[in-house]
Amino acid sequence: MSKTRTETDTFGPLEVAADRYWGAQTQRSLGNFKIGTEKMPVPLVHALGIVKQAAAEANIENGKLDPKLGEAMVQAAREVVEGKLDDHFPLSVWQTGSGTQSNMNTNEVISNRAIEILGGEMGSKKPVHPNDHVNMGQSSNDTFPTAMHIAAGREAAEKLLPALQHLTEALDEKAKAFDGIVKIGRTHTQDATPLTLGQEFSGYVAALKYGARRIEESLADVYALAQGGTAVGTGLNAPVGFDKAFAEKVAKITGLPFRTAENKFEALASHGALNAFHGMLNALAADLFKIANDIRFLGSGPRSGLGELKLPENEPGSSIMPGKVNPTQAEALTMVATQVMGNQTTVSIAASQGHFELNVFKPVVANAVLQSIRILTDAMQSFADNCVKGIEADETRIDDLMQRSLMLVTALAPAIGYDNAAAIAKSAHKHGTTLREEALKSGLVSEDDYERLVRPELMIAPA
Amino acid sequence: MSKTRTETDTFGPLEVAADRYWGAQTQRSLGNFKIGTEKMPVPLVHALGIVKQAAAEANIENGKLDPKLGEAMVQAAREVVEGKLDDHFPLSVWQTGSGTQSNMNTNEVISNRAIEILGGEMGSKKPVHPNDHVNMGQSSNDTFPTAMHIAAGREAAEKLLPALQHLTEALDEKAKAFDGIVKIGRTHTQDATPLTLGQEFSGYVAALKYGARRIEESLADVYALAQGGTAVGTGLNAPVGFDKAFAEKVAKITGLPFRTAENKFEALASHGALNAFHGMLNALAADLFKIANDIRFLGSGPRSGLGELKLPENEPGSSIMPGKVNPTQAEALTMVATQVMGNQTTVSIAASQGHFELNVFKPVVANAVLQSIRILTDAMQSFADNCVKGIEADETRIDDLMQRSLMLVTALAPAIGYDNAAAIAKSAHKHGTTLREEALKSGLVSEDDYERLVRPELMIAPA
Amino acid sequence: MSKTRTETDTFGPLEVAADRYWGAQTQRSLGNFKIGTEKMPVPLVHALGIVKQAAAEANIENGKLDPKLGEAMVQAAREVVEGKLDDHFPLSVWQTGSGTQSNMNTNEVISNRAIEILGGEMGSKKPVHPNDHVNMGQSSNDTFPTAMHIAAGREAAEKLLPALQHLTEALDEKAKAFDGIVKIGRTHTQDATPLTLGQEFSGYVAALKYGARRIEESLADVYALAQGGTAVGTGLNAPVGFDKAFAEKVAKITGLPFRTAENKFEALASHGALNAFHGMLNALAADLFKIANDIRFLGSGPRSGLGELKLPENEPGSSIMPGKVNPTQAEALTMVATQVMGNQTTVSIAASQGHFELNVFKPVVANAVLQSIRILTDAMQSFADNCVKGIEADETRIDDLMQRSLMLVTALAPAIGYDNAAAIAKSAHKHGTTLREEALKSGLVSEDDYERLVRPELMIAPA
Amino acid sequence: MSKTRTETDTFGPLEVAADRYWGAQTQRSLGNFKIGTEKMPVPLVHALGIVKQAAAEANIENGKLDPKLGEAMVQAAREVVEGKLDDHFPLSVWQTGSGTQSNMNTNEVISNRAIEILGGEMGSKKPVHPNDHVNMGQSSNDTFPTAMHIAAGREAAEKLLPALQHLTEALDEKAKAFDGIVKIGRTHTQDATPLTLGQEFSGYVAALKYGARRIEESLADVYALAQGGTAVGTGLNAPVGFDKAFAEKVAKITGLPFRTAENKFEALASHGALNAFHGMLNALAADLFKIANDIRFLGSGPRSGLGELKLPENEPGSSIMPGKVNPTQAEALTMVATQVMGNQTTVSIAASQGHFELNVFKPVVANAVLQSIRILTDAMQSFADNCVKGIEADETRIDDLMQRSLMLVTALAPAIGYDNAAAIAKSAHKHGTTLREEALKSGLVSEDDYERLVRPELMIAPA
Repeated sequence: MSKTRTETDTFGPLEVAADRYWGAQTQRSLGNFKIGTEKMPVPLVHALGIVKQAAAEANIENGKLDPKLGEAMVQAAREVVEGKLDDHFPLSVWQTGSGTQSNMNTNEVISNRAIEILGGEMGSKKPVHPNDHVNMGQSSNDTFPTAMHIAAGREAAEKLLPALQHLTEALDEKAKAFDGIVKIGRTHTQDATPLTLGQEFSGYVAALKYGARRIEESLADVYALAQGGTAVGTGLNAPVGFDKAFAEKVAKITGLPFRTAENKFEALASHGALNAFHGMLNALAADLFKIANDIRFLGSGPRSGLGELKLPENEPGSSIMPGKVNPTQAEALTMVATQVMGNQTTVSIAASQGHFELNVFKPVVANAVLQSIRILTDAMQSFADNCVKGIEADETRIDDLMQRSLMLVTALAPAIGYDNAAAIAKSAHKHGTTLREEALKSGLVSEDDYERLVRPELMIAPA
Repeated sequence: MSKTRTETDTFGPLEVAADRYWGAQTQRSLGNFKIGTEKMPVPLVHALGIVKQAAAEANIENGKLDPKLGEAMVQAAREVVEGKLDDHFPLSVWQTGSGTQSNMNTNEVISNRAIEILGGEMGSKKPVHPNDHVNMGQSSNDTFPTAMHIAAGREAAEKLLPALQHLTEALDEKAKAFDGIVKIGRTHTQDATPLTLGQEFSGYVAALKYGARRIEESLADVYALAQGGTAVGTGLNAPVGFDKAFAEKVAKITGLPFRTAENKFEALASHGALNAFHGMLNALAADLFKIANDIRFLGSGPRSGLGELKLPENEPGSSIMPGKVNPTQAEALTMVATQVMGNQTTVSIAASQGHFELNVFKPVVANAVLQSIRILTDAMQSFADNCVKGIEADETRIDDLMQRSLMLVTALAPAIGYDNAAAIAKSAHKHGTTLREEALKSGLVSEDDYERLVRPELMIAPA
Repeated sequence: MSKTRTETDTFGPLEVAADRYWGAQTQRSLGNFKIGTEKMPVPLVHALGIVKQAAAEANIENGKLDPKLGEAMVQAAREVVEGKLDDHFPLSVWQTGSGTQSNMNTNEVISNRAIEILGGEMGSKKPVHPNDHVNMGQSSNDTFPTAMHIAAGREAAEKLLPALQHLTEALDEKAKAFDGIVKIGRTHTQDATPLTLGQEFSGYVAALKYGARRIEESLADVYALAQGGTAVGTGLNAPVGFDKAFAEKVAKITGLPFRTAENKFEALASHGALNAFHGMLNALAADLFKIANDIRFLGSGPRSGLGELKLPENEPGSSIMPGKVNPTQAEALTMVATQVMGNQTTVSIAASQGHFELNVFKPVVANAVLQSIRILTDAMQSFADNCVKGIEADETRIDDLMQRSLMLVTALAPAIGYDNAAAIAKSAHKHGTTLREEALKSGLVSEDDYERLVRPELMIAPA
Repeated sequence: MSKTRTETDTFGPLEVAADRYWGAQTQRSLGNFKIGTEKMPVPLVHALGIVKQAAAEANIENGKLDPKLGEAMVQAAREVVEGKLDDHFPLSVWQTGSGTQSNMNTNEVISNRAIEILGGEMGSKKPVHPNDHVNMGQSSNDTFPTAMHIAAGREAAEKLLPALQHLTEALDEKAKAFDGIVKIGRTHTQDATPLTLGQEFSGYVAALKYGARRIEESLADVYALAQGGTAVGTGLNAPVGFDKAFAEKVAKITGLPFRTAENKFEALASHGALNAFHGMLNALAADLFKIANDIRFLGSGPRSGLGELKLPENEPGSSIMPGKVNPTQAEALTMVATQVMGNQTTVSIAASQGHFELNVFKPVVANAVLQSIRILTDAMQSFADNCVKGIEADETRIDDLMQRSLMLVTALAPAIGYDNAAAIAKSAHKHGTTLREEALKSGLVSEDDYERLVRPELMIAPA
């Protein structure tokens, strides 16, 4: 039989596994919320550690907290931040909507670990009490949204934006490498006037650059922290100046420009900042969907598709069709995009449903935002490394498709008028002939004119 | 150092941990798709086991498969179905959009486990080859959507519908227990004419009953299986009759009315059945959201809210406000509802993006559908047991609020006309008086009339 | 100067244009809700006319309503139903969430029109009072959701399902016409094993057939009417039996199987029926998106795309590229699908936000549901007539693409094993050779075997 | 019989009503796209006028366009901009996905109107040809997205942001007026520690201020114009420098900081800018939803709700319950929010579905973005004027609810510890006693301490 110890909260005593640092409220939550397999995201747990570290440091400095206790608490909090105590955070996303139970989980783990460091008895709440000391000057209502912002800010700055930059660079390399390859353009999926393959890829690069800028801008609001608002935004039971001192600590710990939120009532009750931030992830997802779609269609074949691109072959593609290779990285990326777009709906609804002084959809917002960041990050990295970097142009195929196109006729329009040019293209289409044949037959264009005007390599820029 | 063995696929050899049953394609996928933390859902893995069991049984019967090999394969497949080999299915949701790699994961695990059973050498593909034997007459393109339908059908029939029934019954018990309690109705969140608390709860019961019926009806399409369509829906390389024989096996294994899909081209390329099925989960989620919202508002207080219901107190509600208790089960349930509604967006987009003979958003559809089922199931069970069952009516408070209401004036309207009745109610509202006072003052109603007409207990049904 | 008359409600008098039938509450709403350009949908206005007709008929029969007044009211209501008074319904969708003002708009128009018929003075409310007579036994809270169901039911049964049937038949004709055309299949947008073009289209037909069945089934709940619940679902002020009598009248007027809702509390406070119904429109939209996408890609070109289909040329496609023709019907249809999928989000949120006895998001639900029906109906009709009917197969191109495919190797796998077959295909891909060359070179297949096994026309069904 | 004239395009001649300026392509589109009732939004039509004016001006300056023709074209374009020709733009949103037909509609109207000005014959295309002159140096593919950006930019800057500012100020006035009113806070909809009503409203003000800033920032990308990219982004057939000259003209015409887009390939194929911009509308909608919900619940009653606020009474609230008044402005605003959140789904999907050089979901994106702007603008204006400005606080009720609250115990926690404070609150809750009674009974707090510590007016800020 496994050993336990007794923990208590205001509802009474409970048995907790002896090798776990958590206390009664965490254990109670495990019993009350047996819902799903989604645990509170690890980056959020680490962010709660940062919150507790920063709070303890600020409370030592403002003289509210005995430094001896405080230092043990900081040490314990650091262990949370560093991931050493991940196994002690077992709670579900589908719990109290304020994340109170995960805040208490953090309080209990740090309390017991600090008690252990100080040689006390776990579960005794002495000398470090989970509420009176670890939660000093705090409420779940400011702690949890603060941790949400810290987690989202860190994940975005440290993981998402670098991965986005990585993919942008991979595409930009191809844009440069493909600069001289003139190809047919396609609009409405139909043949259109030419451009270079490099130009086509430059559009992808531009979309991702703009996406990165938008995400960076929207992080400004994510860097604003609710901490100091306590229960309802007034800051009751927090000392004057705690909010700013706390935010400075977080900025120092993370190296990111976190600051205290200007209005704590908004910070507890609205999730406008994260909703707007996710809107930028959503816009990025849409652009990634388009890029991945293009690449799989341009690489379709190998014999009976468009076949302009040769995509890297990473794995067998079919359990029944021997030798088949598929654009699997594009598939993973577009699936990720659909999840992010669904998460946008979730975050939007959740953000709209605050009541009075608190929004109690915090865990689902945190989970959706952090999932979107994580899967976008990983999928962009994977797409860059396992697909984009290995893309080659099939120049023969590209030239062949381009030369056939009737839309080169567009270059004649300024000289002979739209209606005449249209008649030539339509005639070629109808008779299966070339543009050249029909243009000369029309009598509107001389052979010299045709040679001078219909030059794909000159059709890729303003004249 | 951990030991490995060499596995091969058509791309070449790879080292795999010696204590894992999977082979080269699974290992390759682990390297190529380091995306997110979402693993292929366990119910889907078990459903793939059912697919392989049913296929092996059908192939033994039709004489294509050596019974000796086949029986070992069936044994291995059963172990997959029973969850004994869950640790051998490590792949990410964010992989090939056909789920090919999870189909191959299943083929490889069953191949190696059957080889082991038969005393062969793992990795040798002899005497049981993952493609030639375990995947016999199949393609990922029919296997994976078949497993999606089996998993969704089983989870819905065996878990979701019973949990929904459980919650419906818990609410129905309350509806009956609260039958005689007349209370104020509220429309537009404003005071309205009375009803009984039992009637109010009967509306919840009805919504859930209709929800259950809709889900059951939509399962009819989920019970149709793609198997037998193989690569593109034609059934190439599957023997005539394989589809029906297979579906009969699945029906027998699961005890559910699975059947072969009428049109295999639709079954591979559309996810209309699962999209429509999820639409029913989505509608259920909306009704649950409303019910949970009602219960938390009716239970708001304890002193400064509506306070008509007393909700069970399950845990401390606040890390800063001592003694606070919150409607946490309603919060978990409404968060679950926002996730399901977001999943609807994901599933809708994913289902719309098939191309030609295949929809390659299968894993994300499977993940979203199975997540919605799982969290709805668990949250309904939890809400029933940890909230609904413990709800009590505060009859004193209910009566107090009801007696105050000016909307009892509605009972006078048929007698004195809408305009006169409105004038009485407005006057009472303006002067802070009672309806009775104003009605008598108007001279339009005698005291006897008032007593006869304005009787809340008679205002709860047609006259 | 335009002439006016004075109308009054319980808030006092207001001037209304003399040539309008509406009264004070409608006029007041025009001033209070200057929001957007979306007017209450015309089918809903007509349905409100049906409600008033049926109520008047029921009230005449049950003896509550003076037949002389009642007959004038029925006549006026018929004019609403027949669209003769559309110009007298000016209110915005963005009004009271119960639709009260549109119910009152109907009451006022019918009251004044009946007064006119009876020779009275408009605005006098005599002898036909908008509340006491036209709204007799009713509340906006049951009238408006009843009208929503009537409108949705009629539009679906009379317009949407016939248009869906029309498109299904157009595709089915093509499926039959294209039955003998063997073409390359595509999975993951990559070359796969062959099927017939008829089979490909049969998948579209099946998806639409299932979609139609799902919509029909989900209409069963739409046919349930809230009427008789009055203000909060109890039926206060409605006579016993009014609900059933009313529903029978509606069934007779419409020729559709409307019935009274079993539980009126659910009928006022939930929109589960319409949410579930819209889920079926949403699933249909996803399938239409896929079909339209396929058709535009299969018809891409004319010279540098897949080019298997020749789509009808309906209009010039470009203002700059002469002679360009685009798959514009597919574009309109896929845009419609995105709107329907967005409407699903709107309807889902709105349906989740009822409070207590009433959901006050009724007009937005009505507007979204009726818009989805309307644009799906029209777009399917247009797509059938302006695109599908004119589609021709380019058999030369289709055969050319099919013959090139390396995936014909799948037919060799049962004979020589998956791994050998894969090696042959990969070698052909690498060397740019034909399958036949590589197969023979491998020594695993004789020329006779090859001829016997690799026959696309035999690869389109189980063997 | 109505008179017609003959118009022609490259598909041949068509009859057009003699009193309409449009030509053959518009007429053809009317026949081909009989879908829905949604016409191309008026602000987009006006923006197309701006595009044609700016293009003509730039083409006169660069010497490509005969000034005599050009000036007539500018005059005609101005009439489009000023709304004088709205009746000549009859096309549906559900048309070609590039908006080609609306671009041609504009070309045709301006051509014919300029011909009329110059004394020519309408339909002759002389001396002003719709393609060769009005569309000079342009393609629908750059013109239409340019008009989308101009329309969205103008509507946002000139209508949405002022209305948002107006609502923010109305709420801010209330925040200031309610500054001294201490009230109970509510978290989880349950009683919590106090704050002032002014603080509560300050949270709304802050949310809207941040929302305005986010919208302003996201407009930066909307101000980037695709014009100059022509058919596929290369600028073929546009003179060098046309893009910049054009954007300067637009900036001058509109007084807004429009500029040429840096990368025209992105500008045609992605709608990242509008998708991100709509993400900000979506975040605003969520915050508005929350604010409106708060206000209706705080104003619920009049006798049996929370009743802290008295909302203006704008109209009769019920057709059956005489004297009922409802929070109808909150209902309109929250319905608008659900539409905007649905539009987010539509825009997200549409933006993700570009292919190659063009996104062909432009009209649905334009329609959704412009609808969201319009209904948010109007609903915020209406909510400010018809609700917020008239809100009054019921100070008696507010004080009554606040004094009852057990959560004032929080002020004791720093003095006596969380666990002791919880015991006091729980005891009061259990026994129906006051906090004061239980606190003194506990022996942990003296009467003096209680008076000193539990002072709601001091509990509204950090100590």
